[in-house]
Amino acid sequence: MTTPDKETIEQAHKRIGPHTLRTPVLTSDDINSLAGCQLFFKCENLQKIGAFKARGAMNAVLSLSADELKKGVATHSSGNHAQALARAAKLVGVKAYIVMPRTSAEIKKRGVLSFGGEIFECEPTLQARESMLADVVKKTGATEIHPFNNYAVIAGQATAAKELFEDQEQLDIIIAPVGGGGLLSGTALSAQYFSPSTEVIAAEPAGADDTYRSMQSGKIEPSQANSIADGLLTSLGDKTFPIIQKHVKDVVTVTDAEIIAAMRLIWERMKIIVEPSCAVPLAAVLKAKEKFANKKVGVILSGGNVDLDKALKLFAESK
Amino acid sequence: MTTPDKETIEQAHKRIGPHTLRTPVLTSDDINSLAGCQLFFKCENLQKIGAFKARGAMNAVLSLSADELKKGVATHSSGNHAQALARAAKLVGVKAYIVMPRTSAEIKKRGVLSFGGEIFECEPTLQARESMLADVVKKTGATEIHPFNNYAVIAGQATAAKELFEDQEQLDIIIAPVGGGGLLSGTALSAQYFSPSTEVIAAEPAGADDTYRSMQSGKIEPSQANSIADGLLTSLGDKTFPIIQKHVKDVVTVTDAEIIAAMRLIWERMKIIVEPSCAVPLAAVLKAKEKFANKKVGVILSGGNVDLDKALKLFAESK
Repeated sequence: MTTPDKETIEQAHKRIGPHTLRTPVLTSDDINSLAGCQLFFKCENLQKIGAFKARGAMNAVLSLSADELKKGVATHSSGNHAQALARAAKLVGVKAYIVMPRTSAEIKKRGVLSFGGEIFECEPTLQARESMLADVVKKTGATEIHPFNNYAVIAGQATAAKELFEDQEQLDIIIAPVGGGGLLSGTALSAQYFSPSTEVIAAEPAGADDTYRSMQSGKIEPSQANSIADGLLTSLGDKTFPIIQKHVKDVVTVTDAEIIAAMRLIWERMKIIVEPSCAVPLAAVLKAKEKFANKKVGVILSGGNVDLDKALKLFAESK
Repeated sequence: MTTPDKETIEQAHKRIGPHTLRTPVLTSDDINSLAGCQLFFKCENLQKIGAFKARGAMNAVLSLSADELKKGVATHSSGNHAQALARAAKLVGVKAYIVMPRTSAEIKKRGVLSFGGEIFECEPTLQARESMLADVVKKTGATEIHPFNNYAVIAGQATAAKELFEDQEQLDIIIAPVGGGGLLSGTALSAQYFSPSTEVIAAEPAGADDTYRSMQSGKIEPSQANSIADGLLTSLGDKTFPIIQKHVKDVVTVTDAEIIAAMRLIWERMKIIVEPSCAVPLAAVLKAKEKFANKKVGVILSGGNVDLDKALKLFAESK
């Protein structure tokens, strides 16, 4: 496979349609006033499994051959992709083997188990994850579905922005968070194909600003992985970086305090639950106001899987 | 005015359309499994001002004559109706005078002020509220817009169920919470006019089960007002009770512990924020499972205005 073209994303959208939600686009007068622009929030926190990852994993599983499918699928993931892959595998009736760091949120482990996924716990390092996954793949013959560095996954994630462009025309800017870059590269491709006048901006935690640095240096930089936004700690992949490099205009970085404040704002004003990683784009809009002033801005809200007790503690500590 | 007929509700819907949201209808596979039926949640927590009350207040204000409007509108309300009336008044450019008990949630007071409403604080008793409101009306000449015992308000609230019937046909049951009965009587009228085969069931806190008792005795009973569901503590009115008596089939009562558990379930599984009063219908569905088994059930989610710190503390204490 190569970088997904327009038709590939259209096919992905048709393929996953019966198994994913067309999530609502919400607005908030209060937040528009605070931001000084018009924001259109694509609510992937209301997606199946509570995150956009349901799209990419579903498309990747449905793109496998019958022979590949028989032996199941495998991945390493700290969270939402794990649940998404377990769910996709369950829907087509095959096994999902999930390598998860033992530090993953309980809510995310329970999600995997509820879809019949088999969890292999490892130490929370990339090396431990990759080494255990290699063992699992060797033992089972399962096909690895990488969380982001996989063109079928990227094409699936692209469908969120595609829907937003269909529901809200003439966006000046679309902003998405970036971790490994699956959502961001998919968003960038959809902008190119379905709304070419829309600028693509990335939002990233300052404590994991490897995308910002990679754009500067022109090569994939490692992430410091030091942020509360636990879905955005990974570095880019060799499939996501070239797309991002070509199509993303700007990267805005935000501190953890700014992320928590934006998260609270979304909970309070929009009455929806978002996880820290999901609040990063709004934090960026509120920080770099001049970039967005008076514009129509699409915001991909990526997910809502957060332990309520942990969120309570975050909000209390940030007061 | 008399009990709103079909045309009155259709007109109300057209009138408020430009000023209210057509809120999404969400579902949850997880909650369906737990409940043993198919639930369709009408998300009025995502409505303007975070509650269905935006509908009734908007319709009532837009139904006044130009002469009446000039002197403004007034009400007493502990919360969502207060914000809704302040917002409606602001949209048509007139004053709103709001009598609020001093114990009202800060988030609700801030909401009123943000729409330019003028707050008059009183003691948290019905007598204090009514007496201060009478003074305010006498002084200003404003028209009182009662939170529920007002046919234009009832017709406005009815539009939430009307939209749900349009978006999801062939519901076997629709369930709504009941406090003063504005939402419930409106829901019952919409069921009668737009989906006559749908049964209407009410959900009520056990510590404020005056509707249950009123249905037994055949007259309006006072409320004990002893529940965490602070939007459902009032008794029925002489305009809402006859409609409820005629069209509501059953009243299910639930404890505060059941309300908190249902509230947590909605936050965790649906990624949306609901206030305690709003979780009462789901608590009722989970409690009286046999009534709902295998049915298609519409659930009106009434509002999401809750202090986050208070809510998260409730969850922590209820573990």
